[in-house]
Amino acid sequence: MNPVIDLLFSHRSIRRFTDQVIDEALFQQILRAGQAAATSSFLQGATIIRVCNVESRSKLAAYAGNQVYVEKAAEFLVFCADLKRPGNSCREYGKPFAGDYTEHFIIATVDVALMAQNLVVAAESVGLGICYIGGIRNNPREVSDLLELPQGVYPVFGLCLGYPDQDPETKPRLPLEVILKEEVYNEEGDAQRIAAYDEEVREYYRNRTGGGHGISWSEQVATLLSEKSRPHMRQFLAEQGFTMK
Amino acid sequence: MNPVIDLLFSHRSIRRFTDQVIDEALFQQILRAGQAAATSSFLQGATIIRVCNVESRSKLAAYAGNQVYVEKAAEFLVFCADLKRPGNSCREYGKPFAGDYTEHFIIATVDVALMAQNLVVAAESVGLGICYIGGIRNNPREVSDLLELPQGVYPVFGLCLGYPDQDPETKPRLPLEVILKEEVYNEEGDAQRIAAYDEEVREYYRNRTGGGHGISWSEQVATLLSEKSRPHMRQFLAEQGFTMK
Repeated sequence: MNPVIDLLFSHRSIRRFTDQVIDEALFQQILRAGQAAATSSFLQGATIIRVCNVESRSKLAAYAGNQVYVEKAAEFLVFCADLKRPGNSCREYGKPFAGDYTEHFIIATVDVALMAQNLVVAAESVGLGICYIGGIRNNPREVSDLLELPQGVYPVFGLCLGYPDQDPETKPRLPLEVILKEEVYNEEGDAQRIAAYDEEVREYYRNRTGGGHGISWSEQVATLLSEKSRPHMRQFLAEQGFTMK
Repeated sequence: MNPVIDLLFSHRSIRRFTDQVIDEALFQQILRAGQAAATSSFLQGATIIRVCNVESRSKLAAYAGNQVYVEKAAEFLVFCADLKRPGNSCREYGKPFAGDYTEHFIIATVDVALMAQNLVVAAESVGLGICYIGGIRNNPREVSDLLELPQGVYPVFGLCLGYPDQDPETKPRLPLEVILKEEVYNEEGDAQRIAAYDEEVREYYRNRTGGGHGISWSEQVATLLSEKSRPHMRQFLAEQGFTMK
């Protein structure tokens, strides 16, 4: 198609990295490329904490559910939604702070994700591999204390970056016909398409693990959605000032 | 740096489009490139509603606060967070549905944003312009009714795509030093950096409007955060099944 679209299609998460460090000037360019993403109402509601300290890395790896690549990756970034910075501007201009609506939470969280994904594309364009770490939300209080996150700031996800020491296959996605609807939401034909896709996903896992039954997409998400998921998040967010009015 | 990073740096929102349609095969490639983004726990919690119907477009433009480019753009997509699809899988496997935690809301919302930003990069790589439309959250109930969104699905934002009929400047971003923190959250030196940036933003607006005082970043975000922002969102999301336990 074109080199950019080819690059996007080549994405897969990398969980094993070489020891090679990332050139600092290059890394700064990648970070700035992240910032070039769109931002809702010009808020720029994202802050990145770059963690190099070995002890902190080790703690973060544990908090995220013992993901060793959090320790081993050349760089580890914690992406935070940040309403403190614009809150400072409220004070500066003598305005009350009302940034505790659900909408503010959405704006800041989306800002973080758009910036991160742009940064990821930039990183992959220079041969780096990445892995998002949602697992830091397993222990968001511990992560926030370690990183000294103030009120108005919460850690959305982490990101490992480094030069890949593995070359995994790309993972098949749902058929476009399933996720794209014309004019209105309509599930006609989706069950059959998803059944065929489930078989494709089973095959993907069989290839990765060298046999066995494999697990389908439907089985995985049924498990994910049938269980409590990080039930502490609501309370934690409220403590950080995201009361979601 | 490299062509991908150059592309990312060239982003600016486009709000005036030519009449040129987007080739259908190309458009499908762009959509698929969006899908190639990372997805949390393999959920793939995003659904796109593509709206071509002229009357629907006109309504959406009004719902979004009379943004005419929603009508005029070659394509308009509504990006939805979708927990209904994995919910169907729960039923299929005889499992209870527990997808009403704040965490599920975060996972699905982030999934949507990552996919959208990948799609945007693909679109811009072939010369298209885009504009995110958060304004659809002004009237999320009306948008959802029009698009027949079921329980478990909410519209996060819209996206205009088309060939640009304008060539605006890129908008300056906060200095990297302000949004990037080393090891811990630390605001040392930020006030001075933001003051200098505010002057840069004023200059940007002065150039765009041909004079006047210009408005700084700090003034804009102070206003945004000192006012109620879409206070209906919480109730609307609860009605859609996002109770945020």
